[in-house]
Amino acid sequence: MIHVICVMGERVRFVAGELGEWRVDSMRAISGRDVPAAARLARIEGDPSAAARGSWSIDGVRSYERYVHRAEQIRLAGSPALGRPDATRAALIPICKTDAWWALPQDERRAIFEERSHHIAIGLEYIPAIARRLYHCRDLGEPWDFLTWFEFAERDRGAFDTLVDRLRATEEWRYVAREVEIRLSRDE
Amino acid sequence: MIHVICVMGERVRFVAGELGEWRVDSMRAISGRDVPAAARLARIEGDPSAAARGSWSIDGVRSYERYVHRAEQIRLAGSPALGRPDATRAALIPICKTDAWWALPQDERRAIFEERSHHIAIGLEYIPAIARRLYHCRDLGEPWDFLTWFEFAERDRGAFDTLVDRLRATEEWRYVAREVEIRLSRDE
Repeated sequence: MIHVICVMGERVRFVAGELGEWRVDSMRAISGRDVPAAARLARIEGDPSAAARGSWSIDGVRSYERYVHRAEQIRLAGSPALGRPDATRAALIPICKTDAWWALPQDERRAIFEERSHHIAIGLEYIPAIARRLYHCRDLGEPWDFLTWFEFAERDRGAFDTLVDRLRATEEWRYVAREVEIRLSRDE
Repeated sequence: MIHVICVMGERVRFVAGELGEWRVDSMRAISGRDVPAAARLARIEGDPSAAARGSWSIDGVRSYERYVHRAEQIRLAGSPALGRPDATRAALIPICKTDAWWALPQDERRAIFEERSHHIAIGLEYIPAIARRLYHCRDLGEPWDFLTWFEFAERDRGAFDTLVDRLRATEEWRYVAREVEIRLSRDE
């Protein structure tokens, strides 16, 4: 029996503006240019095609795993769900990788991603504190390749900071051309 | 220096109807249900978003390699271009794989695809006779996962028949839920 981790094909739209469940606490460009400031952010899953676009928006799609191996997939099945009541902190991190990354063959991207940068292994250390959902948007024509959404409790804010610092120190991150970090919160 | 094989992100629209460079010689469902009959087919690359949709159409996108390793990428760089004057025969093969396929981790999909089914190795045997271009459409919300486009000369029609027969006999093809073969021709 195969455990299906991901609801594949489900669309998402992140809409920044004056509305949305999440307050924007900060936005900063880690690499490349910033995105326009906004007060609030909404994450609309399911059928977001009719959703308003606010001051700016980015569309993505949940898709199949591009690098995860079987042993990792089993461990990732223990990942926490989104929407936990005490997860009042969130982050949206849109990323765009370089042309050099995308021109690499699959085996070399996997080796950089996991064997040398330990992307999955590092993430697993923060389970169950940090919930994470990856959306793909490169093939949709967006100016981003991925959108990663994180949710965690106030008490795990330091753990989240460490997680992203560790990832940004890896070889994989040399292939990140643009990255913006949007930190968010909501009331319990 | 990295040799970029693929113009990534470029969209395509295949439009079936009364117009288009290619005459439809035959259409048949290999697995699952057929598509409606049409007299001609157009392949519109670049910015096809304004193109008419004919009696039916399918959108796709050129994307990065999901299974190709370095040694294979080097050999694939010898692939012929589309549009050769004597390539008056073509085929469009839309494919949809099963949920079980997409739930597999990357290492198991790669093992089925190449180590056990020799998908890339078989294709390489037909270079330079058969030109091939792969488009992805799963993440675009199409009812297909891939569109493969082939072009070849009349004299290589038998080679093409053998190529598709060999692929359909592989373990990978047990994960094909739907497949339609559209055979096409044009004047020299």
